[in-house]
Amino acid sequence: MDERLILVTNDDGYASKGLAAAIEVARGFGRVVAVAPETTQSGMSQAITMYSPLYLRKVREEEGLEVYAFSGTPVDCVKMAFDYLLREERVGLVISGINHGSNSAVNVLYSGTMGAAIEGSFYGCPAVGLSLDDHSADADFEAAVLYGKRIVGEVLAREVDLPLCLNVNVPVGKPDQLHGIKLCRQNRGFWREEFYRHEDPRGREYFWLTGEFVNMEPGADDTDEWALAHRWVSVVPVQTDMTDYRQLKKLGGIFGE
Amino acid sequence: MDERLILVTNDDGYASKGLAAAIEVARGFGRVVAVAPETTQSGMSQAITMYSPLYLRKVREEEGLEVYAFSGTPVDCVKMAFDYLLREERVGLVISGINHGSNSAVNVLYSGTMGAAIEGSFYGCPAVGLSLDDHSADADFEAAVLYGKRIVGEVLAREVDLPLCLNVNVPVGKPDQLHGIKLCRQNRGFWREEFYRHEDPRGREYFWLTGEFVNMEPGADDTDEWALAHRWVSVVPVQTDMTDYRQLKKLGGIFGE
Repeated sequence: MDERLILVTNDDGYASKGLAAAIEVARGFGRVVAVAPETTQSGMSQAITMYSPLYLRKVREEEGLEVYAFSGTPVDCVKMAFDYLLREERVGLVISGINHGSNSAVNVLYSGTMGAAIEGSFYGCPAVGLSLDDHSADADFEAAVLYGKRIVGEVLAREVDLPLCLNVNVPVGKPDQLHGIKLCRQNRGFWREEFYRHEDPRGREYFWLTGEFVNMEPGADDTDEWALAHRWVSVVPVQTDMTDYRQLKKLGGIFGE
Repeated sequence: MDERLILVTNDDGYASKGLAAAIEVARGFGRVVAVAPETTQSGMSQAITMYSPLYLRKVREEEGLEVYAFSGTPVDCVKMAFDYLLREERVGLVISGINHGSNSAVNVLYSGTMGAAIEGSFYGCPAVGLSLDDHSADADFEAAVLYGKRIVGEVLAREVDLPLCLNVNVPVGKPDQLHGIKLCRQNRGFWREEFYRHEDPRGREYFWLTGEFVNMEPGADDTDEWALAHRWVSVVPVQTDMTDYRQLKKLGGIFGE
């Protein structure tokens, strides 16, 4: 039997500590090809690069591992991997992450990590987005790697239905400080911004986004936000039919059909 | 009663013909403030700018209309409008578009137009994304403006439940060539890429995304893709809970809970 091939990507860039952690998770399960952005692409959502050429370079190669840096978005990296680099191969799993910062609740929509995971799930294999609730560059990924391995192991061992895309968020803490894995739904909420204003060295006013998350259901204990806050590793399966079926019914009275 | 305030944005940039068309739609219903990207932001999805300062400038002002160019993404524009420029005002509606190119099916996930519309729906008013199935810079927006006015008029005249976000796509053609409005669900499908490869003037190989949409349900007549292809204006209500509830149930056997 051919060895399993795993695609790893992220949004923090090929040189981030989180990519190394994701590769560590993946290597236990097969041969690894990583295609990650040249530069940080946090908050890039499911963006694609339509109006610029993109450059690819191999940055590392050793037994069972190749790492490429690609000058596009996280989704561009996934497309480059499936539709060019690995076109003739069968990819068994996509891992995106491990992100420096959580992607719970509505962050799934803004996250480049989850954008890439979602894109991966369009290619006929399971996709797992892994995020750690710590933005620092030298975050401690021990628990995230441990739980990443456990979750990926389960996904690969079972007969899971496709498409399958998991949004996994790991709280800060050593493994023995976490309670375990909790299946959740996406917490409802949104961000409100406080624009930081300042003058640049040329005297032009600039703005910088700084937001605060508004949790619309702080009491609900079945959400990813709750799980994270209570030291559980949250797992939310993600789908991509954005249709609002409740509104679809209600609007029938207005627009016919 | 105060005059209604409408926020207009897009992803093709403040100078695009589509923005002028969206402003034309909006002006029939109240005072208009437009905040649109400085440059084209197609394919930017729900991306936000986290690591750069952003610049704002007013590019036009006349009775009942102000237009701003903002150096960020479409979602940044919406945040700038609600959380800074219009912080003290009540916005009654967001219109994003009119996009040069359709945003049916899975394109809702990649689209900067729809990213902005979705973001707008987080601020307590209805949001309408308008797209025309024609990528050309000098596309004919006559039918899109007509149907845009009709749909916005219905949304504002009725007691709609919030959140409400509509993904409206208008086929190419004169108004009398279109059948009318069709409420739809999002078509299932995905893109496969053919990477265009070439050498730049310095001899470095580059890649450029060129994709093809794979329709997973070409026969289904209740989808936006079908409607567009059959000269109907498609209206898909969009929601933002990405939780895959079917998988949530199935995965209970693997991850407990």
